[in-house]
Amino acid sequence: ARNYRIAVIPGDGIGKETVPEGLRVLDAAATRFGFSLKLDHYDWSCETYQKTGAMMPPDGLDRLRESDSIFLGAVGWPGVPDHVSLWGLLIPIRRSFDQYVNLRPCRLMPGARTPLAGRTEADIDFYVVRENTEGEYSSSGGRHFEGTEREFVSQLTVMTRHGVDRILRYAFELARTRPRRHVTSATKSNGITFTMPYWDERFALMAQQYPDVSTAQYHIDILCAHFVQHPDWFDVVVGSNLFGDILSDLGPAVAGSIGIAPSANINPERVHPSMFEPVHGSAPDIAGRHVCNPIGQVWSGAMMLEHLGEKAAADAIVAAIETLLREGGPRTRDMGGQAGTAEVGRALAEIV
Amino acid sequence: ARNYRIAVIPGDGIGKETVPEGLRVLDAAATRFGFSLKLDHYDWSCETYQKTGAMMPPDGLDRLRESDSIFLGAVGWPGVPDHVSLWGLLIPIRRSFDQYVNLRPCRLMPGARTPLAGRTEADIDFYVVRENTEGEYSSSGGRHFEGTEREFVSQLTVMTRHGVDRILRYAFELARTRPRRHVTSATKSNGITFTMPYWDERFALMAQQYPDVSTAQYHIDILCAHFVQHPDWFDVVVGSNLFGDILSDLGPAVAGSIGIAPSANINPERVHPSMFEPVHGSAPDIAGRHVCNPIGQVWSGAMMLEHLGEKAAADAIVAAIETLLREGGPRTRDMGGQAGTAEVGRALAEIV
Ligand SMILES: CC(C)[C@H](C(=O)O)[C@@H](O)C(=O)O
Ligand SMILES: CC(C)[C@H](C(=O)O)[C@@H](O)C(=O)O
Repeated sequence: ARNYRIAVIPGDGIGKETVPEGLRVLDAAATRFGFSLKLDHYDWSCETYQKTGAMMPPDGLDRLRESDSIFLGAVGWPGVPDHVSLWGLLIPIRRSFDQYVNLRPCRLMPGARTPLAGRTEADIDFYVVRENTEGEYSSSGGRHFEGTEREFVSQLTVMTRHGVDRILRYAFELARTRPRRHVTSATKSNGITFTMPYWDERFALMAQQYPDVSTAQYHIDILCAHFVQHPDWFDVVVGSNLFGDILSDLGPAVAGSIGIAPSANINPERVHPSMFEPVHGSAPDIAGRHVCNPIGQVWSGAMMLEHLGEKAAADAIVAAIETLLREGGPRTRDMGGQAGTAEVGRALAEIV
Repeated sequence: ARNYRIAVIPGDGIGKETVPEGLRVLDAAATRFGFSLKLDHYDWSCETYQKTGAMMPPDGLDRLRESDSIFLGAVGWPGVPDHVSLWGLLIPIRRSFDQYVNLRPCRLMPGARTPLAGRTEADIDFYVVRENTEGEYSSSGGRHFEGTEREFVSQLTVMTRHGVDRILRYAFELARTRPRRHVTSATKSNGITFTMPYWDERFALMAQQYPDVSTAQYHIDILCAHFVQHPDWFDVVVGSNLFGDILSDLGPAVAGSIGIAPSANINPERVHPSMFEPVHGSAPDIAGRHVCNPIGQVWSGAMMLEHLGEKAAADAIVAAIETLLREGGPRTRDMGGQAGTAEVGRALAEIV
């Protein structure tokens, strides 16, 4: 039978509550679709940092390397600065395993509360494809003339042909699997005049290789406006590390799904494991009360199964989420219900 | 009597149609409030470029320097690349005259069609304060190993203490003039780890100098989401050149005012003239047909008068816009009406 080895990192806060529900649903899917998951549990988190001075042990990445995929909850906790928590766990995983695609579906789900007027499920259904390893998130920069009046800071954005082409190619390939076959590129070449014109150039070249895919290109400022005004225009939207980050929060926000949206950090060549995590964070305000919504984690599990080749099981999980929401199954508070985290998890596991 | 010298640059496309209406309303306000405007007209545009090879004459900036303010329509036309049109006219004005504040009101106006559900005028009324001279729009960068597989491009973001502090101070001073006295800072210090932590540091220091102003701070990704989900949270929002650019398109988009929003490029010390322009562009698709909406231009004129010290006249123009919209006065097509550009301009001039 098909067997997959999964590294499980609940992380901080509500990650500890959503991951068990994600696993519950994955387990149900495995039983139904005839594969098995071997889980390696890692309790790496801000607590680990407070005890040991590091978010994960020195051989942490090596241990993860053995797995087929990584299933993560949330990273970050008040009192531990981001450069410790995120840069000690999340970012090293993304970078060491060359997870250069950050993929996030933006869908108006049944029963979700979109802030937009008059939009239905058919209007909002697109993917944001974000470059996840280079660009604006750079390791080159510094502080100059520190402590003086002429103090300044600098940071170098770097985009390589290798890095730009592979993310664009991923976006075009993804578009080919979808009925509309449309790719939108996020740019800002009218203001950011060295890196972004190059991005545009590579986009235009890549588009020539995909004559069956139609394209559009907008500056990031007006593109954000279009997300709100015309979410129905989009099918696959590709952006740099920063622009993709912005669009992949804005997209779920307009869809009313920011609390339940999933994300995938993918190494498409499968040389390294990919990582799957909900878009939401560790939510210190509600952590520990077992009231958080597990749907983002469950949906991330579906993306993981799709990546592992278990497409039917992945589809069944997404369908289970839709059924639960459409048919008034148990809901957590954020969706106007009363149910606890586990109750929603169990309901989903039953439907799958 | 008070007299102001105004440099008028209609620029391209619908700028040529909106500027005359802006002037019409300014003229009415001048008569009513007892001041006069001396206008210097400059036809600098993409046509100038096509005729002369430059967007403006070599002494263009020197001529503008004589004026109290610059009243601009729109810059840009198909066939003329942005690095020629924008970087040959708009950006040099912003930079040479150290117009380091880009100020944009985001207001849900009566009768505007916001894409958001259930929002009223009281919910959306804030300013975006954008740094307008440094940051991500930098002149430092390049292309390396051109034409080879290892080709890469780079661009250096630079933020100076001088530049950061003065825009933050402007935002806090502005908040002090408003009832809520609240400033929100846009950051991304969890991902962009050299420049943005510095921005946060200066923001925290500046906040100490304004104990009467409350503050909040969000990463740009979730801040964009909050603009859609909770526009009522915001009063004054301050951001870097890029983040301010994004937020000042997204803000008007959620308010349904992107077609009518004004903007001011301000040199607060008044060493140099400031520039006032609508947020919309030259709109080649409808240019020449006299159907475009002049409200953004008229509203920009109000911001200009406020800057010149004619607060009562500025308020009267904004009130005229509100009255026209609230009481079903003539509207252009984008607002569901049938009126032409001049008809709306005349109606506003009459109300003022
Ligand atoms: C035209 C372009 C360079 C400009 C900018 O990004 O500054 C525009 O988007 C604006 O906001 O005025
Ligand atoms: C936590 C942070 C560094 C991160 C990012 O910007 O990449 C987050 O916003 C995300 O999108 O996963």
